[in-house]
Amino acid sequence: MKEVVTGIDIGGTNTVLGLVDRDGNILAGDSLLTGSYPDVADFVKAIADSVKKMKQKAGDVEIKGIGIGAPNGNYYKGTIEQATNLVWRGVIPIADMIEKETSIKVVLTNDANAAAMGEMIFGAAKGMKDFIVLTLGTGLGSGIVVNGQMVYGHTGFAGELGHMVIVPNGRACGCGSHGCLETYASATGLVRTVLLLMSEMRDNTPLRNIPPAQLTSKMIAEEAAKNDPVALKAFDYTAEKLAIGIANSVIFSSPQAVFLFGGLVNAGELLFKPLRQYIDKYVMPWYRGRFEVLPSGIKEANAAVLGAAALAWNEIL
Amino acid sequence: MKEVVTGIDIGGTNTVLGLVDRDGNILAGDSLLTGSYPDVADFVKAIADSVKKMKQKAGDVEIKGIGIGAPNGNYYKGTIEQATNLVWRGVIPIADMIEKETSIKVVLTNDANAAAMGEMIFGAAKGMKDFIVLTLGTGLGSGIVVNGQMVYGHTGFAGELGHMVIVPNGRACGCGSHGCLETYASATGLVRTVLLLMSEMRDNTPLRNIPPAQLTSKMIAEEAAKNDPVALKAFDYTAEKLAIGIANSVIFSSPQAVFLFGGLVNAGELLFKPLRQYIDKYVMPWYRGRFEVLPSGIKEANAAVLGAAALAWNEIL
Repeated sequence: MKEVVTGIDIGGTNTVLGLVDRDGNILAGDSLLTGSYPDVADFVKAIADSVKKMKQKAGDVEIKGIGIGAPNGNYYKGTIEQATNLVWRGVIPIADMIEKETSIKVVLTNDANAAAMGEMIFGAAKGMKDFIVLTLGTGLGSGIVVNGQMVYGHTGFAGELGHMVIVPNGRACGCGSHGCLETYASATGLVRTVLLLMSEMRDNTPLRNIPPAQLTSKMIAEEAAKNDPVALKAFDYTAEKLAIGIANSVIFSSPQAVFLFGGLVNAGELLFKPLRQYIDKYVMPWYRGRFEVLPSGIKEANAAVLGAAALAWNEIL
Repeated sequence: MKEVVTGIDIGGTNTVLGLVDRDGNILAGDSLLTGSYPDVADFVKAIADSVKKMKQKAGDVEIKGIGIGAPNGNYYKGTIEQATNLVWRGVIPIADMIEKETSIKVVLTNDANAAAMGEMIFGAAKGMKDFIVLTLGTGLGSGIVVNGQMVYGHTGFAGELGHMVIVPNGRACGCGSHGCLETYASATGLVRTVLLLMSEMRDNTPLRNIPPAQLTSKMIAEEAAKNDPVALKAFDYTAEKLAIGIANSVIFSSPQAVFLFGGLVNAGELLFKPLRQYIDKYVMPWYRGRFEVLPSGIKEANAAVLGAAALAWNEIL
């Protein structure tokens, strides 16, 4: 009988599930539409059904635990707290509920911490004791590992590097503060930067023909690849802000590597080339060459489930 | 026979030693002029003599270990590396040398980490698992504790919060970078700020009668206490920059408390009042009220030796 864990990534739109073995192979998978369960009790039942279904599909397996990655997930309490992009309000004791329904041990953390766990157990951080994962998506999430352990802090919500103040009194952030890193270094930050640059530069660009509400980071990357001056400058601007954020993180925990993950990273050297230059400019000179900035070693399609599964393998066993 | 450890703080001017029991009582003390030993071998012999002398003075004690706090101290290797304000150049294997000379186990870290250890074992961080100590002296040092463990990172030199970039392309820093926190939030930073403000403001102040090279943070604090507008504004300016540094540290490791230590902290509410206001302004709103900013619980006169001793108690036993 093969030992597996269940990895569950709860997202605003989809909840993705997988049975994952110790080597990171996904033996069976499933998905649910999160928003179609306004009552969390129904969601928990659907999760339990899905786990049973996957177990039947995978054949002779024993599920040793369930790992969950969720927005605003509290590792200490197993709760989802005030997640603005989920349908359930308040504090949801989701880990306890799923544990009761499935009789399988459940452990939960936020999605960026799960990504870091995935990197440590299955990805490019294997064997590293000190590293940071930044997820550059709609916002900027982070998971920090120090001395081989995830940093949860006193509240359980450590590792909010997206809310490092990079520009005092700068761009308004969804968190209520201003000038946070994620208002610059994220997919939405890149779009905001293009708007700023179109106000400052006189260069012509096809980006001026797209309503700002429809502008995406992917469109900007495509224009940058064609040497569009505004799009290129936008990546340069984004890279500079991200470099300051990375420089300020490196002096905190002196990681062996900083891994970048998510949509923006697909832009490759458009982002990484200026990023390396700006990091060398901004980081305390002693640290130059004493850490690496690398793309994640996990395939994006599988990352969320593998991260949640990695949490289970790491914490339950 | 009472068990004690030896705490040693190696500074640019003085090296201070003490025999310290488990409760933080200093049973005997001594000091050396660091600069009068250009050959490190002579310094090591003087340390060993001093330890013997203190042991005789303290009577019936057993020395269980030696803890050392030193600038640029590498915890992993027990070395002092490229310390610009010490007489010895290069990489000095000081822990091994003292261990050989005294036959007592030696452990070493940098001075700010030792301060954090002192806070954890003997001071206001007793029982805390997640906290940060900032030492506001000539520069700004930091010691970070996560999950009950000192953060050393991959290199052994984690926790350089003084070199967080607060103002990109800002003030030149001794580290070779620009706009580092310690160029603003330190005794020398406060002096630099007064120079800036005297250039911007038209207000009269006795500080204009002091040659800048002789201006000290103590003089500025004294004038601020008399409501001097330039000195008051300088504390406000310093508090704002420090608040950004603290806000950016809190979102990293979510500490229970941030302790401030060193000369600048003696200014009391002149610093703390604006500091609390600016922290509330800059920190991610979710964190408001979820951590404290407090003065250190260790008396400044004993702090260096107690910190080094705390390291020994924590690590050797």
